[in-house]
Amino acid sequence: MARATVRRRVVRLRGAERSERADVLAGEEPLEIRVGGEALTVTMRTPGQDFDLVAGFLVGEGMLHEAEQLAALRYCAGTDADGLNTYNVVDATVRGGALPALTAHRNLLTTSACGLCGRDTVDAVRTHVRWPLAADPLRVAPEVLYGLPGKLRAAQKAFDSTGGLHAAGLFTADGELLCAREDVGRHNAVDKVVGWALREGLLPLTGHLLMVSGRASFELTQKAALAGIPLLAAVSAPSSLAVDLAEELGLTLVGFLRGEGANVYTGPARVC
Amino acid sequence: MARATVRRRVVRLRGAERSERADVLAGEEPLEIRVGGEALTVTMRTPGQDFDLVAGFLVGEGMLHEAEQLAALRYCAGTDADGLNTYNVVDATVRGGALPALTAHRNLLTTSACGLCGRDTVDAVRTHVRWPLAADPLRVAPEVLYGLPGKLRAAQKAFDSTGGLHAAGLFTADGELLCAREDVGRHNAVDKVVGWALREGLLPLTGHLLMVSGRASFELTQKAALAGIPLLAAVSAPSSLAVDLAEELGLTLVGFLRGEGANVYTGPARVC
Repeated sequence: MARATVRRRVVRLRGAERSERADVLAGEEPLEIRVGGEALTVTMRTPGQDFDLVAGFLVGEGMLHEAEQLAALRYCAGTDADGLNTYNVVDATVRGGALPALTAHRNLLTTSACGLCGRDTVDAVRTHVRWPLAADPLRVAPEVLYGLPGKLRAAQKAFDSTGGLHAAGLFTADGELLCAREDVGRHNAVDKVVGWALREGLLPLTGHLLMVSGRASFELTQKAALAGIPLLAAVSAPSSLAVDLAEELGLTLVGFLRGEGANVYTGPARVC
Repeated sequence: MARATVRRRVVRLRGAERSERADVLAGEEPLEIRVGGEALTVTMRTPGQDFDLVAGFLVGEGMLHEAEQLAALRYCAGTDADGLNTYNVVDATVRGGALPALTAHRNLLTTSACGLCGRDTVDAVRTHVRWPLAADPLRVAPEVLYGLPGKLRAAQKAFDSTGGLHAAGLFTADGELLCAREDVGRHNAVDKVVGWALREGLLPLTGHLLMVSGRASFELTQKAALAGIPLLAAVSAPSSLAVDLAEELGLTLVGFLRGEGANVYTGPARVC
């Protein structure tokens, strides 16, 4: 089975000096996600917690919102050239018929007309979010926010050895870390956290905080919203469309969360 | 038309202090890419250089390798709710019949058997790369490498105001910057650079260097290879599969390029 980290030889340059040594890399392998035997997508990911990744991906696509809908998850029995199972194909059995995926829905939006705008994308997500995010009574103290990056960083096992992994962490309103996941792909780290929560029966994640190690994009905001999370915090900047979506849904979006500081882009009343 | 940067009000927290001020965000809007009128994909991107983005995306998918194949690029005439063109749908007319996209090919690889492994993905890319990368006579001095991050950073106009954009830069072997592009998506920044080069008639980019602001993933390495670039340098870590692909193709992969240091993961003979 593929591993989360891989050892390689590397030539190290420091000024005019040159040496060779062993280095540890973040593992990356393709994962094919199937639903009811049908291939849905192939994503590059760091092996590990694959079932959580698939479950979370399906939540983010608007296909799942509770554990009961997920009848089964299994690795397909395929093998590589050496006759070993690749553990790179996961098939999900979804109860109650597959809902149309958000991705398909998005493309659908643009087949008839020739226009496509940020507004359409925001609307497409809004129609799929079944949780009343704007009504979430969450309140978070600034000091709790300031403590999140350190707690997430401390939970990143593989980052220490590779320096090459994104992280996502799910916290309570008091700043207690419930679940942290790492991946070469930033979306995958969030999917792994959301999938863990779905399988634990925790959706919607009312009153919880999601922290990501990088930027806050539209897609990460979408994933938070579809999991019912009222606050998304990022170490770096949000994009314009992430802010538009958060504003529309009543989600609190925090960026540049570093040291004793942060920028609150939407829903600032929750931070007090 | 959507803009590269967008102004928003933000609540700024610093310790126990709270203030409100204007902030500048990186623009993010969906872009639908069509080939011959058929929708291929929707990607979130920072508006600007959209034709380069589409051209580069098609190079990275193995559908294009020279400017002559690109008969036309045009914005579709769709409008948003206010009757304005969204400039978010681009249609490419490709000469000589559309080749099968690498993405489709990848899925094809796994429909018959149930296995999928890193090896398959590396092989799929290898069969699409038509340039003899391993034979590229490029030689780069370490001092030239050390100078790349500063030059790329200096060319990042929007990053200064938003702090939220990835960058990619194309350089000569002497370290001269030919083209720098920014985007909320790291793949898009590379696509914009490669698309610029294709449209300038510069493919294959023999003897050139590509520098990216983040990590070196499998996909970025694939994009460099399909554009004929013999050296990819990244500020952060490469993934295991990026190193495998670079090794297989004879591409030089440099990571952790910071200050007066770097790690050379593959093809170290070119750095001397």
